[in-house]
Amino acid sequence: MVRHFADRLTDAIVAKGAPAVVNIDPVLQSLPSEFRTAGSSGGDEDRTAALQGIRTFCLRVIDIVAPLVPAVKFNIACFEPYRAAGIQVYDDLIAEASRRGLIVIGDVKRGDVGHTAALYAQAHLDEPNSTFQTTADAITLNGYLGWDGVKPFVDVAREKGKGVFILVRTSNDSADSIQDLVTRDGRKVHDVVASLVAQWADDSSTLGHSGYTSVGAVVATRRGDDAARLRAAMSRSIFLVPGYGAQGGEAEDYKHYFKQDGTGAIVAAGRSIVFAYEAPAYRQRFPDAWDRCVEQACRDFVADLRRIIPG
Amino acid sequence: MVRHFADRLTDAIVAKGAPAVVNIDPVLQSLPSEFRTAGSSGGDEDRTAALQGIRTFCLRVIDIVAPLVPAVKFNIACFEPYRAAGIQVYDDLIAEASRRGLIVIGDVKRGDVGHTAALYAQAHLDEPNSTFQTTADAITLNGYLGWDGVKPFVDVAREKGKGVFILVRTSNDSADSIQDLVTRDGRKVHDVVASLVAQWADDSSTLGHSGYTSVGAVVATRRGDDAARLRAAMSRSIFLVPGYGAQGGEAEDYKHYFKQDGTGAIVAAGRSIVFAYEAPAYRQRFPDAWDRCVEQACRDFVADLRRIIPG
Repeated sequence: MVRHFADRLTDAIVAKGAPAVVNIDPVLQSLPSEFRTAGSSGGDEDRTAALQGIRTFCLRVIDIVAPLVPAVKFNIACFEPYRAAGIQVYDDLIAEASRRGLIVIGDVKRGDVGHTAALYAQAHLDEPNSTFQTTADAITLNGYLGWDGVKPFVDVAREKGKGVFILVRTSNDSADSIQDLVTRDGRKVHDVVASLVAQWADDSSTLGHSGYTSVGAVVATRRGDDAARLRAAMSRSIFLVPGYGAQGGEAEDYKHYFKQDGTGAIVAAGRSIVFAYEAPAYRQRFPDAWDRCVEQACRDFVADLRRIIPG
Repeated sequence: MVRHFADRLTDAIVAKGAPAVVNIDPVLQSLPSEFRTAGSSGGDEDRTAALQGIRTFCLRVIDIVAPLVPAVKFNIACFEPYRAAGIQVYDDLIAEASRRGLIVIGDVKRGDVGHTAALYAQAHLDEPNSTFQTTADAITLNGYLGWDGVKPFVDVAREKGKGVFILVRTSNDSADSIQDLVTRDGRKVHDVVASLVAQWADDSSTLGHSGYTSVGAVVATRRGDDAARLRAAMSRSIFLVPGYGAQGGEAEDYKHYFKQDGTGAIVAAGRSIVFAYEAPAYRQRFPDAWDRCVEQACRDFVADLRRIIPG
């Protein structure tokens, strides 16, 4: 009997005391120098050495944050430039984070239809009877293709106790050009996508004991009224909220994503934790100790979230 | 000096006499039996054997269609379930198709923002000074995130003589739920995306001698009026039109995607060619010769296109 994704996530949040996700998105140029042993020819040897540095660094970060937060997220884009070897590292990191008891989110933003969507779902959520792969507990999806592009993932998620987070409103500057278009009935496109997500969650997902389904949403908007409206529209979906820290969000902005009881959202922070040693405040406090910077930034992130969460 | 993607594609179409793309999207269960040597335990050995069968089959299909069509397309979803080993095969197939002089489209439908989009662009379009990878000549993109999610790809495409095809209107049943929403000014969402594509093409892409930019569009609609309107809206974009054959399109439906001079679109067919031996008509004509079925179906596809193209 597989356990429901929303229940596993909810339990993990309770256990760690904060709905915090650390985005472990390695960027070669930002790694501490001890992990950057590659040269600059761009040749195969350099790329292999670079990837090895990334792998070792990410394993260390997993080790640091595992006792502090319920979940980590890996963006597969950071690994795809290294082709097959990069995917192997992505899989290794998922396996190690899972082994450490973390909920693992694969930020893959896939979206396709029919049998190709089913193949993506198999690749990123399924776990065949094999040592071939460990997959993430949940992945992000792009829903522009509609239900055909979502259903194959939800089917695997339900069967395997996994989850999906569908892009509803993203945090980037140009997100408004499509997502905020106003439709004839006065709703924005992202409101329509939100209502579709709510419908998809009701139609095809089972409700966990937590009161949430396995169909979540990626929601980011600096406008409190938008956040509150989306929160009401998708009452059974957990929100994955990006943008804390390096992307410029203030803690107060995040409270609108939660319900009154303090449930319903997980907040992700990336650069501000994983590359905390780039920030003068941390570097001065822990000179020559990048790992202490990461640990402290993670603790500060968790403390911030505890302060702003309602209930 | 890199040659412009649209010019390379246009020249290839002229050389082969038809704007035809063969989707080589292998499905294990549909392979001729000689390529299905794997057992059914689902274990690692089976998966490795299955992938080897897929690889060999796809190489044979490349060999058959290379003299007949200007371009092939690989959907990376077919390879991702095999993790690192699958990506290696995807890369091998791209390299082999390129070596055979085919224009190669990677159907990856990626979409992310900022540095992660740049990393995807590096992964799927860039070709560093290395034997590490050969990348596709063009890839498909999901533009739901707006320009932030497209610009990093267009930048690499311009520099490297590559192209992108942005999803505007897809052919699946539920595509209407978001893409056909009517906005306040009476345009559909896909019309707005089309106008964005036209703007992105003008803003950031260079025009090739062919009169087309490296920013193309994925367009599929059975409605001739929609197709004609989109053709007018994106006058400098080459359309990648899926759905010929197995997905149920009739040849006549496709003429609206072309300009009066017969340029402006490439039409993709997949199952109806690659798995032509499943069709009684071909199987009866060439019993026990799956490769002759594929070749004949490809010739028939090219002949159909020559018949319907205007000009």
